[in-house]
Amino acid sequence: MDKLTVLKIGGNIIDNTEMLNPFLDDFARLPGKKILVHGGGKTATGIAASLGIEARFVEGRRITDRPMLEVVTMVYGGSVNKRMVAALQARGCNAIGLTGADANIIEAKKREAGKLDYGFAGDIVRVNAQALEDFLTAGLTPVLAPLTHDRQGNLLNTNADTLASAVASALAGNRDVDLLYCFEKSGVLLSAEEETTALPVLSFQRYMELREEETVTGGMLPKLETAFQALQAGVNSVRICRASDAFRILQQGSHLGTRLEI
Amino acid sequence: MDKLTVLKIGGNIIDNTEMLNPFLDDFARLPGKKILVHGGGKTATGIAASLGIEARFVEGRRITDRPMLEVVTMVYGGSVNKRMVAALQARGCNAIGLTGADANIIEAKKREAGKLDYGFAGDIVRVNAQALEDFLTAGLTPVLAPLTHDRQGNLLNTNADTLASAVASALAGNRDVDLLYCFEKSGVLLSAEEETTALPVLSFQRYMELREEETVTGGMLPKLETAFQALQAGVNSVRICRASDAFRILQQGSHLGTRLEI
Repeated sequence: MDKLTVLKIGGNIIDNTEMLNPFLDDFARLPGKKILVHGGGKTATGIAASLGIEARFVEGRRITDRPMLEVVTMVYGGSVNKRMVAALQARGCNAIGLTGADANIIEAKKREAGKLDYGFAGDIVRVNAQALEDFLTAGLTPVLAPLTHDRQGNLLNTNADTLASAVASALAGNRDVDLLYCFEKSGVLLSAEEETTALPVLSFQRYMELREEETVTGGMLPKLETAFQALQAGVNSVRICRASDAFRILQQGSHLGTRLEI
Repeated sequence: MDKLTVLKIGGNIIDNTEMLNPFLDDFARLPGKKILVHGGGKTATGIAASLGIEARFVEGRRITDRPMLEVVTMVYGGSVNKRMVAALQARGCNAIGLTGADANIIEAKKREAGKLDYGFAGDIVRVNAQALEDFLTAGLTPVLAPLTHDRQGNLLNTNADTLASAVASALAGNRDVDLLYCFEKSGVLLSAEEETTALPVLSFQRYMELREEETVTGGMLPKLETAFQALQAGVNSVRICRASDAFRILQQGSHLGTRLEI
């Protein structure tokens, strides 16, 4: 099967041009078909604050009321996405920036309010693999913002890790997909502040133990959940790694980062 | 030749959901290949003000300094564009929102500072007609934001009237293109406040006279300039009309609005 690389970059990289620019250099020169999924970064919170809108998070997930939906649509779909597309075009990569609404690529359902009301948060219902395949075949590199739509006219805020997993999974039927979660740390760390404690391999069994004993906590939990889901859905390989190591892992077979196993 | 309709909608429609929603209903049910080009609306100015950035205009054109470029990228490329795409998807129209950077559709050159420095304003250098054709062939309806890029990593603010004209002109080689500039008035008015004074037809000769005697002034001048350029470039028909009349003009052969002639 033809190969496809799905890279997800997180907020701390996006907000830091010293990390972002070399990452984009690497991404642009990566051969073969590829998709970039980006998170939101902290800009949305800053802009919201300037507009007098308060940002709220629960368990690392943003509560998206209507004013905040406006802000994330502007910032993720406009500012972050389009600047990244322009930067990739300057590097010779024929990027196309998309939200889930564009070409109806990712349909989601507004999460129902339970104990918590996440507001305009979207849980993915369907990824339009054919539309993404058509873009790839046309020589385009999709750059996906963490926004989906409900086909009833509403944009929805969707976690970028989840979105990357869903996209990689949907394309795994057609392609040999490698999924990399790139961030500012060297992998899944046994001790949060010690870069040398990155696990080379993490099995699902071991993950359950680490979660149980609270060695792995916070935002890493949903990231790992969605990462394991991608493996279960037939994605060839899933890694969590430092953004600056991604190219070496993909092109030079380096064993940096944490490889997941089921 | 296959037909194509290019519709441009201006700011006053975008900011007014009572005008925008029926327009989107009409646009969605318009048969055949079509492209929507939207202006920015006044939201950018409001958001900029909230962020402490002052909006400046000269002869109806925005002066785009770097903070304002950030704002128009967010608002035009994010907020306005994506909300319109989601609204069209809800109406069964397979829309895809694009700036000039996406798929390298529209390359521009930063306008050189002369007597006036327009800042990050882009004059269009090249429209990638093939990329737009590929989207149309794939059954997608491009929704274009008034942003271009210079292929060196910069997004540029580009007048939406000019952009609509350039896109219609570039596709006129392949298709029989009808271009409509839709706004809140009934056409080119001989008396600015009198809707009954709309000209049914306006020749280039007559336009020059009206400009000379200052019957036509302000923002209508650059609109008409670019509109006549499209006719000269081989666009089949160009009209300036009320947004709510566009469907009747296109589908029922109504003679509403002002038809341009060279």
